Amino acid sequence: MRERFSPQKIVGVMGKGDRATALEIDQAYQLGKLIAENGWVLLTGGRNVGVMDAASRGAKSAGGLTVGILPGRDKNGVSEAVDIAIVTDLGNGRNNINVLSSDVIIACGIGAGTASEIALALKNNQKVIILTPNQVTIDFFTSLAPDQVFIAHHPQDAIAQCQALLDRAAPGGA
Amino acid sequence: MRERFSPQKIVGVMGKGDRATALEIDQAYQLGKLIAENGWVLLTGGRNVGVMDAASRGAKSAGGLTVGILPGRDKNGVSEAVDIAIVTDLGNGRNNINVLSSDVIIACGIGAGTASEIALALKNNQKVIILTPNQVTIDFFTSLAPDQVFIAHHPQDAIAQCQALLDRAAPGGA
Amino acid sequence: MRERFSPQKIVGVMGKGDRATALEIDQAYQLGKLIAENGWVLLTGGRNVGVMDAASRGAKSAGGLTVGILPGRDKNGVSEAVDIAIVTDLGNGRNNINVLSSDVIIACGIGAGTASEIALALKNNQKVIILTPNQVTIDFFTSLAPDQVFIAHHPQDAIAQCQALLDRAAPGGA
Amino acid sequence: MRERFSPQKIVGVMGKGDRATALEIDQAYQLGKLIAENGWVLLTGGRNVGVMDAASRGAKSAGGLTVGILPGRDKNGVSEAVDIAIVTDLGNGRNNINVLSSDVIIACGIGAGTASEIALALKNNQKVIILTPNQVTIDFFTSLAPDQVFIAHHPQDAIAQCQALLDRAAPGGA
Repeated sequence: MRERFSPQKIVGVMGKGDRATALEIDQAYQLGKLIAENGWVLLTGGRNVGVMDAASRGAKSAGGLTVGILPGRDKNGVSEAVDIAIVTDLGNGRNNINVLSSDVIIACGIGAGTASEIALALKNNQKVIILTPNQVTIDFFTSLAPDQVFIAHHPQDAIAQCQALLDRAAPGGA
Repeated sequence: MRERFSPQKIVGVMGKGDRATALEIDQAYQLGKLIAENGWVLLTGGRNVGVMDAASRGAKSAGGLTVGILPGRDKNGVSEAVDIAIVTDLGNGRNNINVLSSDVIIACGIGAGTASEIALALKNNQKVIILTPNQVTIDFFTSLAPDQVFIAHHPQDAIAQCQALLDRAAPGGA
Repeated sequence: MRERFSPQKIVGVMGKGDRATALEIDQAYQLGKLIAENGWVLLTGGRNVGVMDAASRGAKSAGGLTVGILPGRDKNGVSEAVDIAIVTDLGNGRNNINVLSSDVIIACGIGAGTASEIALALKNNQKVIILTPNQVTIDFFTSLAPDQVFIAHHPQDAIAQCQALLDRAAPGGA
Repeated sequence: MRERFSPQKIVGVMGKGDRATALEIDQAYQLGKLIAENGWVLLTGGRNVGVMDAASRGAKSAGGLTVGILPGRDKNGVSEAVDIAIVTDLGNGRNNINVLSSDVIIACGIGAGTASEIALALKNNQKVIILTPNQVTIDFFTSLAPDQVFIAHHPQDAIAQCQALLDRAAPGGA
């Protein structure tokens, strides 16, 4: 009898690189840890800075599996907490791959790159959870796609909403 | 003596496809016409709908040159007013090419795709002129990159600001 | 009555950059000149070296229009003979755009990059004219797709075959 | 004390989809199994046909981890033996990601798509092992880059050469 497999659930965590705040880095670490504890794969932009790095380290602290979608043409600058480094040589064009490959996207802080990822996800009819956004960010993205944007107030809240979205996407069970 | 050439100035006009409003389509047509009258090349997403198509038709009405960066794997669905059809097979990943190839970007209306293009342009340290945006759009993008976002109130205003940005980028003259 | 437009015919010329031979550069210049004289748009990889640069200069010598699909994230290194610089930030990933955007591809010399472009064109069911190839190159590509590979013995021969392929693709006339 | 991690070794197996021969499928399955037994991650084009599917199933039969780089805009058509599905929406443009992300590439059979991957790998200065190629394929690729092309006569031979290349790339040990 042939065993059945299927792709694992992937949760993308997006956020700033060099300019991430201490709060965003702390929240990204917690998100990564919770994602791993739920048995999901973490996907980030893969670099060894900011939210990408912190989320990946959080996931590894809980024994999770981490994927990094790198913008450059080799693995230079990859986070040491990335297990699977995907080398795209696409620059910011890789942002579309980040969102397309994620079953749910969590935005942890907002910069121009993260804004592009949220917008691409909405364009692709995907769901995005935005963690502790300011009001102008909420207003803007809900004006674009009110049914696809979810607001979370702390990492555990984001993960609970993520679980609900994954369950809704696969009603028969993961 | 060898003649000197250099790449032509390219102005990108971004906006909705199927869901563009009548006002946006009218403004896009005017933008395209004015871009052609200024001797610039028009670049759009290339499809035969909405802002892309209207801007291209406007540019052709004034004898301009039009470039379309298509998302699909062939020229199906290209606007008949596109002279140079670039076939990317990148889906929305082509949005990054739209902005990188444009010396200045003008957003004519806001949807998720256009929002991704504005955000990618800001991430790439480019300038964006947003035509008649609502307040939430102004607030959001100026919160991301206040020095890179310019607001225009009608097509002629957008073109005047575009001229100023192109002059600033090349102080020695176009 | 609304005037009818449609995308112009694009002929891609592919070949080596830094390592192009003097013969390849001479042939590329002639190809570019002949493409312009036929009223087609020339498309190349856009850089200011080798076959790309020579073909573009040839086309400009005859008043043609030239498109360059650049691999980097800005216009640095563009050939001064490129009119329309498309900035992709895709590295060698831009090779697929080179071939998809060309109605016919002419390979002028063979290196690894050009080989990838021929192979991608064949994969995309496109036609490729290879100019003065060695026997091993002929044998390899005709073994992959005998009906899509055409051999030319000098630039005028390549252009004659290009004309035939364009006519066949559009039997009603260009 | 902080634990040290680093990206895992990735071996890419490339080959035909729908037109793969029974021999190629058998060899791909063996390659996948051996890659998993060596503790490497398998990377393929991810679809549920041909060499991609067979290699992934072979790797899963030995408890390995499998990555699939999909050409489309969603996970439709993914092999059920792919653990990590990367959704690129790049069409054949994803071939460059396949090779850039692989520490070593093994070609199992030759079609136009695989030829583009070998050529892109050579262009990127990477090493490629070609399994049981015909003479014309050997002649062509060794004419392009003699120091980067390795010929294997059966799957175990390919894996032994792969091990040697990975050891050479990381002399201090994996």
